Amino acid sequence: MTIEENLDPEDWDSMRDLGHQMLDDMFDHLKGVRDRPVWQHAPEEIKRHFNGPIPSDPELPEDIYKEFQKYILPYPIGNINPRFWGWVFGTGTVFGALADFLAASINTNSGGIDYHSAPYVERQLIDWFKGVFSFPASASGVLTGGCSEANLIGLAVARNTKAGYQIRQEGLQSPHPRLIVYASEQAHSSIQKAIELLGFGSEALRLIPVNDQFQIDLKALQTTIAQDRSNGHLPICVVGAAGTTNTGSIDDLISLAQICQRENLWFHVDGAFGVWAVLSPQAKGQLAGIEQADSLAFDLHKWMYLPYDIGALLVRNEEAHRKTFSLTPAYLSHGEGGRGMAGGDLVWLSDYDFKLSRNFRALKAWFSFKEHGILKYGRLIQQNIDQARYLAQLISASPELELAAPVSLNVVCFRFIQPGLDHDTLDSLNKQILVELQEQGIAAPSGTLIHGKFVLHVAHTNHRTLRKDFDILVKEVLRIGHQLVQ
Amino acid sequence: MTIEENLDPEDWDSMRDLGHQMLDDMFDHLKGVRDRPVWQHAPEEIKRHFNGPIPSDPELPEDIYKEFQKYILPYPIGNINPRFWGWVFGTGTVFGALADFLAASINTNSGGIDYHSAPYVERQLIDWFKGVFSFPASASGVLTGGCSEANLIGLAVARNTKAGYQIRQEGLQSPHPRLIVYASEQAHSSIQKAIELLGFGSEALRLIPVNDQFQIDLKALQTTIAQDRSNGHLPICVVGAAGTTNTGSIDDLISLAQICQRENLWFHVDGAFGVWAVLSPQAKGQLAGIEQADSLAFDLHKWMYLPYDIGALLVRNEEAHRKTFSLTPAYLSHGEGGRGMAGGDLVWLSDYDFKLSRNFRALKAWFSFKEHGILKYGRLIQQNIDQARYLAQLISASPELELAAPVSLNVVCFRFIQPGLDHDTLDSLNKQILVELQEQGIAAPSGTLIHGKFVLHVAHTNHRTLRKDFDILVKEVLRIGHQLVQ
Repeated sequence: MTIEENLDPEDWDSMRDLGHQMLDDMFDHLKGVRDRPVWQHAPEEIKRHFNGPIPSDPELPEDIYKEFQKYILPYPIGNINPRFWGWVFGTGTVFGALADFLAASINTNSGGIDYHSAPYVERQLIDWFKGVFSFPASASGVLTGGCSEANLIGLAVARNTKAGYQIRQEGLQSPHPRLIVYASEQAHSSIQKAIELLGFGSEALRLIPVNDQFQIDLKALQTTIAQDRSNGHLPICVVGAAGTTNTGSIDDLISLAQICQRENLWFHVDGAFGVWAVLSPQAKGQLAGIEQADSLAFDLHKWMYLPYDIGALLVRNEEAHRKTFSLTPAYLSHGEGGRGMAGGDLVWLSDYDFKLSRNFRALKAWFSFKEHGILKYGRLIQQNIDQARYLAQLISASPELELAAPVSLNVVCFRFIQPGLDHDTLDSLNKQILVELQEQGIAAPSGTLIHGKFVLHVAHTNHRTLRKDFDILVKEVLRIGHQLVQ
Repeated sequence: MTIEENLDPEDWDSMRDLGHQMLDDMFDHLKGVRDRPVWQHAPEEIKRHFNGPIPSDPELPEDIYKEFQKYILPYPIGNINPRFWGWVFGTGTVFGALADFLAASINTNSGGIDYHSAPYVERQLIDWFKGVFSFPASASGVLTGGCSEANLIGLAVARNTKAGYQIRQEGLQSPHPRLIVYASEQAHSSIQKAIELLGFGSEALRLIPVNDQFQIDLKALQTTIAQDRSNGHLPICVVGAAGTTNTGSIDDLISLAQICQRENLWFHVDGAFGVWAVLSPQAKGQLAGIEQADSLAFDLHKWMYLPYDIGALLVRNEEAHRKTFSLTPAYLSHGEGGRGMAGGDLVWLSDYDFKLSRNFRALKAWFSFKEHGILKYGRLIQQNIDQARYLAQLISASPELELAAPVSLNVVCFRFIQPGLDHDTLDSLNKQILVELQEQGIAAPSGTLIHGKFVLHVAHTNHRTLRKDFDILVKEVLRIGHQLVQ
């Protein structure tokens, strides 16, 4: 008789007990997040620990979990802490994490197959986004692992729709006018990465200068488009930014939409985190024009606070979206008959994506949006904006601190200054302040360059932050600055 | 005084209780999976339920969970059931799902930032894969959402490395010889999708015929390469398949490696599920040559049985990998100093990917490989292969069933036959058999075309299947076939 094994727990009861233990530990971990340092420099021992070959023999689940507790849990990146504002990170939610557990347990694949529940959940989410961003009901959309991926897919649709020839077949390797894409010099690096991946070449990406509000210079844009046309190139797409990484600036989307309309260009908006300011009654005016985008990419794991990873893309013209990606070999054949798992007439989500298998990341979004309701998300986003302004006021009130850029949304760039110190010394001083804030576990801004100067970068998408956390930040920047100067 | 809100639970204790309830329910759900139908056709009500605008106001977490239990949980795709073998799906594991909960709770982002634990876990996994597939320690690698994405990244590295000019800058829009990629006509659709996305155009993808083992025809390949060269094109890459979707066939990888070596071509292997047969003592011979691949893409959510979504890519030449993707704007600047969160000298994982944010999908893989040890994974993969052969024997033993392709690994294609029925009638009959198997909740194979004939497609990557499940499949195919014929 053949012995048949499987990968289910050998002892269901002890695995269940361990699960309950993990759950209690994670609740304690999250509840106590404010009491721990933002970040601890992981010791060399950690690096050495994750070494050695793949294990041949089983280890006890309890022992693996202990290893997690000893070597992984104490050395996180820190983004769930109330004083983490570096780069642009998300915070996550408790109910969202529980939803991820449910999704991993039922382990569904929503890429295709009809008449099961998961694709309907993802479709409803997409419908919700269409409502929030005033897209037509006929638009299509797809969840992604983040905004980089959503930008990639959106720009692929732009390319294939506007090239004017059969680009899926011919590619970019045939003698046609050079296709050109426009964005501001403050555009996120994922735009350039997508342009390179899609075969345009970064030479075909025009990075247009910005005005003093860090918005794309409309006049320079139009001049460049005209120049490209007169050089025999084919302008196809403008990328508007709704929340740049450096300063949170939002391009003049209404004007970009008009230019695209007039010039017959695809209007892609990199909504990053910033597009969610549409939920803030005070800030939503800055997003006007977004409803005219041909494609809109955004994150949900920064603002909107969901656990990693989740982003999304909306495309106004469903057919353009589907025609860019749909490919149905015999083994994926579907849509005949009405019965059976491939019998339905829904478009499969894999027809909107370069990927086929899809996890059920939709569930955590669906759970969370219902848990809090969209009005509360609006209040939280407004709170982040107000707190960022509060920080800007603290900075403005201190003669030893300098705001490096206007605070239009939730990003604050600033630095410590002292009379008589030159550019290089100030850069070096602020780099050291940043390192000390992080190494001492006080707070985690990141650093960037604004007008060539090194500055502390606070991108505030953290739902746990209180105003007093910014009081602490300012106090500690001054303290460390003074110490370093002496 | 300003009221400050957050998204943490209003009542931690009741949320904790709900979490424990979910955990118990999921354990019961998974333990009882064999007792439920493989799939139930979701009623129209489900489609209607996921409708309506985004909620404005909060709902109780308990109520949201009840909605999940009523409208989502009872209508899964069925892939965790022991008699699901359609398309190529994964089963998932209990400990893997718990790891996903931990990952979502700590909500780390392992795309960059130094001196925190998550990137070391991902790096160790990549090291483990290098060991398993005999790649050099100097190779690089990255986790992905699946093999489609891994194929895309691998082919991007191939393109950028072999084009012979500055393709990141120039793209494919400049006057250079046409770049050509080769794969068999049984290659997965994700290869064509990647080729299209990368701007080659599908006309630059040569789909070479296969032999009677469904392996790429080496002679035809070489003839086509020579023709392309004589036409002034530049052959750059051959894609070998290690486990085709239709039949599980594995190309002659040793010969492909030799051809690539001789012709100076990049050798990419789409390892899909099949590459994991390297863990089977009996089947690993079929994978010989894989250690010579320049890049190797594979899934971990099919064979290897991890919860969705996870795949990976290995690249022999780390520099080629990094040069394809690394892009460091000021706000991502790192590598200076040794102290602070951006002070380390590790290459950030985002330098190997078009994505920047990364979730901690590494954790479920790390947990699971330790839980079972790689020897047990080898036994499970061998078990799947043996069970597929067992099914093939049952089919061969029945005069009313016909094997449609050789069973070299874990994929069995077959159909019900009756004397005197013509091609169209047999196709229609087998389509109906498939629909009945699914609609009656008995088993879930899928369908495909082999030599133009519609056949039932069993791709066996299910760790819960017993031989008796295939007894049931064969018995029920015969029963339904007879009923339909009458």
